[in-house]
Amino acid sequence: MGGEEPAIHPVPGFRLGTACAGIRKPGRADLAVMEIAAGGSAAAVFTRNRFRAAPVRVAERHLAEGAPRYLLVNTGVANAGTGERGEADALACCRALAERAGCAPEAVVPFSTGVIGEPLPVDRVVGGLGPALAGLSEDGWAAAAAAIQTTDTRDKVASRQAALSGGTCTVTGMAKGAGMIRPDMATMLAFVATDAAVPDAVLDTALRRANERSFNRVTVDGDTSTNDACLLAASGAGPAVPAAGADLERFQAAVEAVCIDLARAIAADGEGATRLVDVAVQGARDTAEAERVAFTVAESPLVKTALAAGDPNWGRILAAVGRAGIADLDVAGVRLALGEQAVVADGGVVPGYDEAAAAAHLAGHEVRIGIDLGRGEAGATVWTCDLTAEYVRINAEYRT
Amino acid sequence: MGGEEPAIHPVPGFRLGTACAGIRKPGRADLAVMEIAAGGSAAAVFTRNRFRAAPVRVAERHLAEGAPRYLLVNTGVANAGTGERGEADALACCRALAERAGCAPEAVVPFSTGVIGEPLPVDRVVGGLGPALAGLSEDGWAAAAAAIQTTDTRDKVASRQAALSGGTCTVTGMAKGAGMIRPDMATMLAFVATDAAVPDAVLDTALRRANERSFNRVTVDGDTSTNDACLLAASGAGPAVPAAGADLERFQAAVEAVCIDLARAIAADGEGATRLVDVAVQGARDTAEAERVAFTVAESPLVKTALAAGDPNWGRILAAVGRAGIADLDVAGVRLALGEQAVVADGGVVPGYDEAAAAAHLAGHEVRIGIDLGRGEAGATVWTCDLTAEYVRINAEYRT
Repeated sequence: MGGEEPAIHPVPGFRLGTACAGIRKPGRADLAVMEIAAGGSAAAVFTRNRFRAAPVRVAERHLAEGAPRYLLVNTGVANAGTGERGEADALACCRALAERAGCAPEAVVPFSTGVIGEPLPVDRVVGGLGPALAGLSEDGWAAAAAAIQTTDTRDKVASRQAALSGGTCTVTGMAKGAGMIRPDMATMLAFVATDAAVPDAVLDTALRRANERSFNRVTVDGDTSTNDACLLAASGAGPAVPAAGADLERFQAAVEAVCIDLARAIAADGEGATRLVDVAVQGARDTAEAERVAFTVAESPLVKTALAAGDPNWGRILAAVGRAGIADLDVAGVRLALGEQAVVADGGVVPGYDEAAAAAHLAGHEVRIGIDLGRGEAGATVWTCDLTAEYVRINAEYRT
Repeated sequence: MGGEEPAIHPVPGFRLGTACAGIRKPGRADLAVMEIAAGGSAAAVFTRNRFRAAPVRVAERHLAEGAPRYLLVNTGVANAGTGERGEADALACCRALAERAGCAPEAVVPFSTGVIGEPLPVDRVVGGLGPALAGLSEDGWAAAAAAIQTTDTRDKVASRQAALSGGTCTVTGMAKGAGMIRPDMATMLAFVATDAAVPDAVLDTALRRANERSFNRVTVDGDTSTNDACLLAASGAGPAVPAAGADLERFQAAVEAVCIDLARAIAADGEGATRLVDVAVQGARDTAEAERVAFTVAESPLVKTALAAGDPNWGRILAAVGRAGIADLDVAGVRLALGEQAVVADGGVVPGYDEAAAAAHLAGHEVRIGIDLGRGEAGATVWTCDLTAEYVRINAEYRT
């Protein structure tokens, strides 16, 4: 992962450690701690699902206190749908880490992912804190990315550097997520760190802008998680980012590039997926309309199963566009392409359509569905994956 | 199919015939003709997908002319996404039937279902008209129901009789549909016939009311078809139905019962399905809210894969309720039951929850998910099915 810059750059001011806490299954790393140097700050966005998990509610309160020092992330159990006990359990874990690290409990920000409805095994989490803290390292990104996974099959880490006036700043992030993926203003779990010195308001805006164009445009199955969270932390050890100007733009671009790398990695690693699919809509009246069409196509089970078969079944794509809720859509103006191959225009298949060329494009691991609504200048790209029998197998057997 | 009254009652004034026209595959019945006695009438609702198939557009125009005499239905090719040629092809088939039957072309109402984007093989359809007309019979319902199927595995016919002041009236209907099922104001293909003498406005209202509570509450995969249509025809050979009163209520109840039978049969025969699922929402502020929650649960891939496994993974149901778009939902007031087993209340699992009892309920062929939002008096039930690897296989291989 990592686009043109595959290296993972450590971020001055951030250390990561992991542990095998045996939270749900023995012998796998399932706990990660990220340390933020004193003086750092963080911005975050969370799921809009009305059933928000206990750690989401606690994390939001703790971040509001300011001065976060540790992120505590466990996989295996989501601590969601656990009622009042859930919050008490999350707080107990924060207190235990705070005692060992010598900080306030509110400086610990908890995140959980995994099965919904089971209580968090607090003793096991606490048992993993010692090893995780003892192993803190600036080079711990890949290990931490592995320790927060559920049904993920690949580590998701992305990294960029940007040359600012005051020197080079680094942005490195990790994410997990493969199923129950349809973030709504926030996302699965993603943690992005920078050494830049960024005022709080700028950090918050940078995260929200990047999030809108990355994690908020990923869908694996249309199911929004109860535990989604995305956090951008800054240690301030590096160059300053002002509230406006070229340095801010370069910083924003680096954050956005890292988030898009991670978002695409999540779609590519969608449960059971064999293909990463870009659904690129243009010619829309506004961005909301473009997103609605792109998501409707990206979430259509019929489109996704055709993609699994590498079948250029464009009729299913048209049918999805047609039910996307644009009441006055003129279907004769809609154009459709698969990769470089034009498929539909003027309400029917284009003359000379080469189905073999379309099929060849769909046979690859990265697929592009291009849709031009022909009624405006706005566009949006949504990332998804194909729907395979393996998705069903994974999700029918997840708890067993 | 047929609920408490499994018999299929012929409807005076209606005859059905079929043919093996070889439209897409040889050796199977793929063409059905329904004859309506002179003086009959019909009401219909159609898909709201913006990409409406050519036969849908032609059918709507022909019905507006009044006096329908023949329904012409083919499977194999949907004649959708076929541009201007599509309408010309549909009209050519209507003209050919009109010539043979001695009626106006506008008295023939065309319907198509099958693959999108391929031209209708007019010659083959026309070749099947002779045999279909020669075989017209009042007892042709089951054969016709078989002849209009695509990936359906079972015939879908339902029948009721109602005792009216003027005598007994019959309502019999057939439907097809297993995939691309999420009707929006209309449905896959459903044809319901009655011998009652029903004024046009009453017939139209009866169909729309029944449709809202039956076909419009079915979802297999959330994909709205380009060819959905539901038609209610009356021959007038039987007793009269007035515009109000007890006879109208009895007639409406019979139509609704037939439509619900057919709607549930479609959900039960959802592609790859092993279970029929009732998602029953109550305690909503209004019907729209209840429907939104029920559809969100019924279309959640994670809920549907858990159902395929017979896994009472209630966390996924809660997560779906939580993302259904009710901004001010108090999650502590939500209650969830699987069959008779209470599962969730007060934001967590109920004391004494018996997971074995819930699993036993989910092991059956008919499953009930009960959701009480605890904020009002409205409710709605949506019918769906589980999501299996077989669904993926069917839809990945549909065109091959």
